[in-house]
Amino acid sequence: MVRWEPGAVERLHSAALELYATKGFEETTVAEIAQTAGLTERTFFRHFADKREVIFGGSELFQEGFLDGIVAAPADAKSLETVIAAVTGAAVFFPDDRRASSRQRTRIIAANPQLQERELQKMSSLASAIAAALRERGIREPAATLAAESGVTVFRMSFAQWIADGAERSLIDIERDLFAELRLMTGSEAQPTT
Amino acid sequence: MVRWEPGAVERLHSAALELYATKGFEETTVAEIAQTAGLTERTFFRHFADKREVIFGGSELFQEGFLDGIVAAPADAKSLETVIAAVTGAAVFFPDDRRASSRQRTRIIAANPQLQERELQKMSSLASAIAAALRERGIREPAATLAAESGVTVFRMSFAQWIADGAERSLIDIERDLFAELRLMTGSEAQPTT
Repeated sequence: MVRWEPGAVERLHSAALELYATKGFEETTVAEIAQTAGLTERTFFRHFADKREVIFGGSELFQEGFLDGIVAAPADAKSLETVIAAVTGAAVFFPDDRRASSRQRTRIIAANPQLQERELQKMSSLASAIAAALRERGIREPAATLAAESGVTVFRMSFAQWIADGAERSLIDIERDLFAELRLMTGSEAQPTT
Repeated sequence: MVRWEPGAVERLHSAALELYATKGFEETTVAEIAQTAGLTERTFFRHFADKREVIFGGSELFQEGFLDGIVAAPADAKSLETVIAAVTGAAVFFPDDRRASSRQRTRIIAANPQLQERELQKMSSLASAIAAALRERGIREPAATLAAESGVTVFRMSFAQWIADGAERSLIDIERDLFAELRLMTGSEAQPTT
């Protein structure tokens, strides 16, 4: 009989991130995560396939967050407008109360080459999925891939600014500024005085 | 006494790529590379620190190729113009007679996660170096990083098109088209009919 553990996923997630951050990802065992969360290993494996899934478990939802924005964009939206809708739409997944845990997660990944590689693959797969969704809307190549890659670049840069020490602005505000900067850079609006 | 082996670097390079492509990178030994090239292991190690350096040995020169273009750009060039000068300037490193070996190198990397990671690091380091060179020219952040990342995206996409099966256009022509596409996409020129 499976016993229902209220908040088990959140407790395991929080215990795992804390241990990965202090002991290191490789050095942490599932037994320690379960113990720190006050749960059993069996409960851990009911929710996560392995230690890595605690960090990358939400990847499908994350990607869908972007793709939903593309589907919802007006039919006549051009490639960049569609990508802006996708990226800013997905910002709801990162409200300011997730900033601290996102920062912790990013530091854990930065400390481990295998996790870094997995994170890079996640970004690369996100760009491919956005490009495919743009092609389905009739946007031709190479515009689709170029717009998708630019959108992921803005997301990555915005995310890094969002989790920087002392940062206070919301992710969506940072993203909007960077997309405006992208337009300025390519000359579609007057250059700002530097 | 060190005996001079004419064309040793080229022979070792070509033998190594051939073996990496057919046997796999991990499975190839330095002894086999030397034997295939008709040279000794000692000669191999006189020119390359290890098997990986055959693939990544030119990374500094490659990066300098981009940075030289930034230094040579007119003082009043804006961020994107400067990056276009950097990327198209470095295209001289990839004349059409290098297309076949570049294609072979890319396939070897794609087959090996460790080499893939090293290649991603190379691109990430290139973007950082370009951004730093732009900041030295007085371009502020985040424009510098955004322009640098966009330039590396155009380079990566152009390179992939350049080595595609049956591709015939030069790298610089592909790059110019993609930069034009980037400007179109961000709305600075009239949208093309699709």
